[in-house]
Amino acid sequence: MGATSATTDRPDLTAADCGAALEALRDRPPLVQSLTNIVVAQWTANVLLAVGAAPAMVDNPREAAAFARIAGGVLVNLGTPYDDTALAMEQAVAAAVDHGTPWVLDPVAAGALQWRTTLALDLLALGHPAVIRGNASEVLALTGGAGGKGVDSAHTPEAALDAARALALEHHTVVAVSGPVDHLTDGERVVRVHNGHPWLTQVTGVGCALGALVAAFAAVVPDPLLAATAATTTLTVAAESAAATSRGPGSFAVALLDDLAALSPAGLGDAARVS
Amino acid sequence: MGATSATTDRPDLTAADCGAALEALRDRPPLVQSLTNIVVAQWTANVLLAVGAAPAMVDNPREAAAFARIAGGVLVNLGTPYDDTALAMEQAVAAAVDHGTPWVLDPVAAGALQWRTTLALDLLALGHPAVIRGNASEVLALTGGAGGKGVDSAHTPEAALDAARALALEHHTVVAVSGPVDHLTDGERVVRVHNGHPWLTQVTGVGCALGALVAAFAAVVPDPLLAATAATTTLTVAAESAAATSRGPGSFAVALLDDLAALSPAGLGDAARVS
Amino acid sequence: MGATSATTDRPDLTAADCGAALEALRDRPPLVQSLTNIVVAQWTANVLLAVGAAPAMVDNPREAAAFARIAGGVLVNLGTPYDDTALAMEQAVAAAVDHGTPWVLDPVAAGALQWRTTLALDLLALGHPAVIRGNASEVLALTGGAGGKGVDSAHTPEAALDAARALALEHHTVVAVSGPVDHLTDGERVVRVHNGHPWLTQVTGVGCALGALVAAFAAVVPDPLLAATAATTTLTVAAESAAATSRGPGSFAVALLDDLAALSPAGLGDAARVS
Repeated sequence: MGATSATTDRPDLTAADCGAALEALRDRPPLVQSLTNIVVAQWTANVLLAVGAAPAMVDNPREAAAFARIAGGVLVNLGTPYDDTALAMEQAVAAAVDHGTPWVLDPVAAGALQWRTTLALDLLALGHPAVIRGNASEVLALTGGAGGKGVDSAHTPEAALDAARALALEHHTVVAVSGPVDHLTDGERVVRVHNGHPWLTQVTGVGCALGALVAAFAAVVPDPLLAATAATTTLTVAAESAAATSRGPGSFAVALLDDLAALSPAGLGDAARVS
Repeated sequence: MGATSATTDRPDLTAADCGAALEALRDRPPLVQSLTNIVVAQWTANVLLAVGAAPAMVDNPREAAAFARIAGGVLVNLGTPYDDTALAMEQAVAAAVDHGTPWVLDPVAAGALQWRTTLALDLLALGHPAVIRGNASEVLALTGGAGGKGVDSAHTPEAALDAARALALEHHTVVAVSGPVDHLTDGERVVRVHNGHPWLTQVTGVGCALGALVAAFAAVVPDPLLAATAATTTLTVAAESAAATSRGPGSFAVALLDDLAALSPAGLGDAARVS
Repeated sequence: MGATSATTDRPDLTAADCGAALEALRDRPPLVQSLTNIVVAQWTANVLLAVGAAPAMVDNPREAAAFARIAGGVLVNLGTPYDDTALAMEQAVAAAVDHGTPWVLDPVAAGALQWRTTLALDLLALGHPAVIRGNASEVLALTGGAGGKGVDSAHTPEAALDAARALALEHHTVVAVSGPVDHLTDGERVVRVHNGHPWLTQVTGVGCALGALVAAFAAVVPDPLLAATAATTTLTVAAESAAATSRGPGSFAVALLDDLAALSPAGLGDAARVS
């Protein structure tokens, strides 16, 4: 069972590759600029710190572009956009594209709300992101499909795979679709991640923090599909450990930070289930 | 001992009613739009998720009104208002009133600060909220009483009960006054909730999250007094369980999320102490 | 080994002084206005509540100045400034200076980013803060030294001590430099705090919360150097207890809140290591 389609020459991505990516992140801790929402900013920073990256939430229009030239990776998350932070996002993305800093788009609730859907498409028009991370509804919305209701997905990741492939090819990017099984594609190769736990959906901002982790890995490995896969396995493998010692979503979120910090490259290589 | 005054024909609210309301919420998870403050946004979302509701923090003026027509309930919390989010609040409330979406007002620090006191009164002028939730000082401020100092109450809930009744009648709403004993009234009926724990006052945003829970219950039960009572008992009964396994405010907040998720409708019906 | 230089007449600060300061805080819980960043607002409020202070996050330009006249202490943290909150900071500081309310400046990422560096210097021009709290890079930036990269310090606290002394004398203030050993100075006296734990750097907002604690202590003790020392020892002594019962940064942050609440004045006096 290969992780790639027959039409690409690139080798399959393996669990060992994810472990090596985590080792690279620990060796050279990346500075991750996060333009994200007010709900998950603290959680996102703590997830980045636990994994070993350095978070910096610079999201005002007077400083965002300059910082995108310093940062190793940039996350743009549309969870709670305002006029000033939306302007900062446009400037940060333009600077990242100009400077070659990898950036990640998390189009939260795209499709359900008009302004942010337009904003997401405007950002994509500025240049290719390394990765677009979202749920099935959000991915469908960016390809012109029917929008979802609210921030939770109304479609299955499997059903969104065709849309993800098309979106990846259109924007020369990687699309990572979250779900019980995560699907990631660069338009040719398709990776499925089978790790995870249902409590991940009962803690706010897990998907948002995943977007930040993708930006962190994109700063240290050249293949965006590997960056997205390493980030997804890191989070979901740690989630499995965390769930084993928790009694509900509160203790699970706490344990997830502990287990992200405790996760070793070798442990990730052993536990990641990618196909 | 009845929970209602002699002047109403409605039956008493019971602990069993609270359990049934929680069962309704779990059966039809409501989408709760929260226009709330930057301090408690994450906590509020996690409380909603733990109970079984779906949070959506849409608080910008370009999208707030449209979302208030999709949401099952709307929370407006005045903890950290800015010009743009205050505008979003006005638009969300206007849309909620127009569309019939129940909305909840939490007038944080009303009375202590002029701008938000005026904002609270302006919002009330747009239409009847399902519930106003606050401490004694805030309730007194909206009725023209002396304001409090900061966000903590300078008055006892019992002393504010007359003001709460007057406010409820004036705005055709339910007023829920938090305190060691919570007092809730629709102007005629009065409900007292005797559950709780002192640590609830040592975790920021517990009252704010209660406002969001009230909006969640208001989306699934038609009687706003029951919605407020079910939300209050859900939070305070879970708090009693959480305190039993905690050693301070940090572990208590974590356990509260676990116990909100673990609370069953039958368990709520057994443990809620309303009179 | 004295905690003061030979050029001052003031007595040495001792661990017992820190214990007495904590007792004063518990006896008269101060209202701490925090104009801080979206990442750490919740954490900061919970740290203040755990210690026994009353947090109030009033950071909009319509109310910030009025509240600075009510508050016992004001924290201004530059982590995520926006045009409107920056204006609120200027107004709050002007009102604090005018009214005599002690205020604390935390110039997050000063030196790395131009706008906030200018903002920090503009705020200092409005009047003397009680304390400036930062890492070595930030302190160097305010004295004209080379800026850091991002929010983490690129310099050691010891190397920044000369800059801290100069900054303290220039602005008639106390400068507290965080690091493995914390250095605090009013330009003449120098205090070193030897408590702490490496996990403090893996939880976002610990330094930011320390700034708020300094403002809380500045509200209850007249000597700003003691306020800064008491805040630093309170946080770092609690951190040592918390680390002993934790397995990673997630559980450590939770335990830190528990141990801040459990810390007694006598316990602080016993465990604080100042020189």
